[in-house]
Amino acid sequence: MAKRPRVVIVGAGFGGLAAIRALRHVNVDVTIVDRNNYHLFQPLLYQVASGLLDPSAIASPVRTIVRRSRNVDVLRAEVTAVDLARRRVTTSAESLDYDYQVIASGSVTDYFNNQDARKRSTGLKDLGEALSLRSRLLGAFERASLVDDADTRRRLLTFAIVGAGPTGVEYSGAVAELIKHVLPKDYRHIDFAEVSVVLIEAGDRILATFAPRLSRLATRSLQQKGVRIVLGKSVRGIDDHGIVLDGGERIETENVVWTAGVRATTPLDLEGDALARSRRVKVTPQLHLADHPEVFVIGDAAACEQGGTVLPMLAPVAIQGGKYVGEVIAARLASETTPPFHYHDKGTMATIGRGAAVAQIGPIRINGLIGWFIWIFIHLLYLVGFRNRALALWSWAWNYFFWDRPVRLIITNAGDN
Amino acid sequence: MAKRPRVVIVGAGFGGLAAIRALRHVNVDVTIVDRNNYHLFQPLLYQVASGLLDPSAIASPVRTIVRRSRNVDVLRAEVTAVDLARRRVTTSAESLDYDYQVIASGSVTDYFNNQDARKRSTGLKDLGEALSLRSRLLGAFERASLVDDADTRRRLLTFAIVGAGPTGVEYSGAVAELIKHVLPKDYRHIDFAEVSVVLIEAGDRILATFAPRLSRLATRSLQQKGVRIVLGKSVRGIDDHGIVLDGGERIETENVVWTAGVRATTPLDLEGDALARSRRVKVTPQLHLADHPEVFVIGDAAACEQGGTVLPMLAPVAIQGGKYVGEVIAARLASETTPPFHYHDKGTMATIGRGAAVAQIGPIRINGLIGWFIWIFIHLLYLVGFRNRALALWSWAWNYFFWDRPVRLIITNAGDN
Repeated sequence: MAKRPRVVIVGAGFGGLAAIRALRHVNVDVTIVDRNNYHLFQPLLYQVASGLLDPSAIASPVRTIVRRSRNVDVLRAEVTAVDLARRRVTTSAESLDYDYQVIASGSVTDYFNNQDARKRSTGLKDLGEALSLRSRLLGAFERASLVDDADTRRRLLTFAIVGAGPTGVEYSGAVAELIKHVLPKDYRHIDFAEVSVVLIEAGDRILATFAPRLSRLATRSLQQKGVRIVLGKSVRGIDDHGIVLDGGERIETENVVWTAGVRATTPLDLEGDALARSRRVKVTPQLHLADHPEVFVIGDAAACEQGGTVLPMLAPVAIQGGKYVGEVIAARLASETTPPFHYHDKGTMATIGRGAAVAQIGPIRINGLIGWFIWIFIHLLYLVGFRNRALALWSWAWNYFFWDRPVRLIITNAGDN
Repeated sequence: MAKRPRVVIVGAGFGGLAAIRALRHVNVDVTIVDRNNYHLFQPLLYQVASGLLDPSAIASPVRTIVRRSRNVDVLRAEVTAVDLARRRVTTSAESLDYDYQVIASGSVTDYFNNQDARKRSTGLKDLGEALSLRSRLLGAFERASLVDDADTRRRLLTFAIVGAGPTGVEYSGAVAELIKHVLPKDYRHIDFAEVSVVLIEAGDRILATFAPRLSRLATRSLQQKGVRIVLGKSVRGIDDHGIVLDGGERIETENVVWTAGVRATTPLDLEGDALARSRRVKVTPQLHLADHPEVFVIGDAAACEQGGTVLPMLAPVAIQGGKYVGEVIAARLASETTPPFHYHDKGTMATIGRGAAVAQIGPIRINGLIGWFIWIFIHLLYLVGFRNRALALWSWAWNYFFWDRPVRLIITNAGDN
């Protein structure tokens, strides 16, 4: 009996899991490698960072998710290298030979070689960062409540978010609500006129990938919550006590969150022409490397052109890519051909807090409460598992009815393994 | 107008919070100091460590709990010293002068000067330790699934718990259930005959503070779950790969949880005669220091004799002590006298897992499913706040109906602040 072809999938994000689902009944052995033992529902990470959701509402063990796919092995390890010629993936635990490889390794925060930004700000891309941000924000209030000097206090109580894409907008809205509705009850001695949230964007509007009208609505909504929005200024420098913007304005703050950019991360050793903007790997219309048809790259890690533009770094692109690649592998094993990948844009959306979201679905623009209900529905649909859906829905209802963000814990020394 | 008397409370555990409630309508200013920003419901800590509950189900922000007590300030700081003569508490943040002090600083893991035990085992007394235990247990399975050598694998998959008081018994029952009902579905390549849970107790029975019949029932229940119980052996040494018991038996394991003892911890600089067993501070029948009637010590930190025995280290003792001390302070301000503290024993209980608990309430001994329902009822009653009650009840129902322990996350770098 011939050995079954082996598929190695790098990354258990949206793309990797979609590929596993598509390969479930295909005659292959699959190994999925991820450094974490959980799949993270990244679009809701800002809700962990702002004290609304517990980590377990948006993170599920990979092994549990893939339980029913009998042809899948899970390896918790860091992928350190890929040898394309020998078809071998090296990891921190063991080496894996493959017949097909699916690279779905996603993206990381891009500091654009700004070392100050890297050292003195926190990204919002993984669970560790989200929990750290939660502790830092609450810690800043604790420290400020002990400080007599008004300047120091204001600096501790200024929360700067750099970058007004969906993550920056959603996080700053959530922080503004936390500050407006929840924390004044806990910190009675703090003068909340000294607290401020600043959203800094180098471009000329927030949510630049959305229609201008939705940007305007989101701007108004954030401003009503008390967020100061600075447009058209990039960050020139960050030091221990503040940010300096282009043009020289200085913002005194000890709390900087960096959501200004992401770049692809892959274990491939590629440079120059092989990479597109944001270090995404150029792929063919079939989502594989030009000279290695057995190596697929999907999701944030891949630069896939469609209709003259590169597909955006969004969960649906990764999910559809993973499904497509699973089907391509099945087709190749059956010696069939497949049409090129076609991404079907079902729309994009962002929440700006309590009862307000913006969404664009094809030519349709939706905002306000209806947008928010659609947002809830879509996100529940994509959350893994009934328990996570129930926990998230419960938390959102709790927040909506009690104006509360209950998970305000500063936990230190958590998980030293 | 005379300055209001100032009460400093050290510790936001059961005792400290009970004192705050009792002082709510008393004409004093209260400051409560704790190193954490949350109150921890310690009796359920083992459920976080075994992946059933999220931290936020058993931890609530102190500031939120005391919101309605308008005479209370919260200080998140470490208490470093107490100057009894000058009536001043020094903390890592600021110094506090007091007219009355309530020391409710609880207890910590006692390794009985066994440095190996301290270095090579984990306690189960705070949230950081519980989350670390959760990560370590899951990490051991991840590592074992990569190991070819059977001895190494068995060592990684042996979980030793030292000390069979309520914490050790409850935790080993929870771990045994996790291993029996949940993990085999996730780790299909692991031979679960190689997995073992060992509970080691120096005394001649587990749950020594309970009636012998309940000890026997708990023993049988744990053994049915697959826990090996070793009695009458103390731990002579722990190294990187195992435990050596009195008499020479060696247990190969890399996972040792130490629940063999606790000792009181207070910021008081006391030695010798001032301390009782487990370094608990001797107090008068009014729960204050003999030569400092303005300094009260309650809960685990205090050694209070009643009817010839010292009251046990249990939440109800701390709660009743806190309430009593609040009333004593109110009475003194009104120049009234108070009777000595009298602890009313409402009973003790311990769960041994799914649908089984032992309880003794006065002369009554209860076990099995009825004990378990009483356990659930009592614990819901004492959990702080509706949200935590709902979350815990939800998690227990989830576990009961789906045989699942869903919070199986290995989170690293969480909370570096």
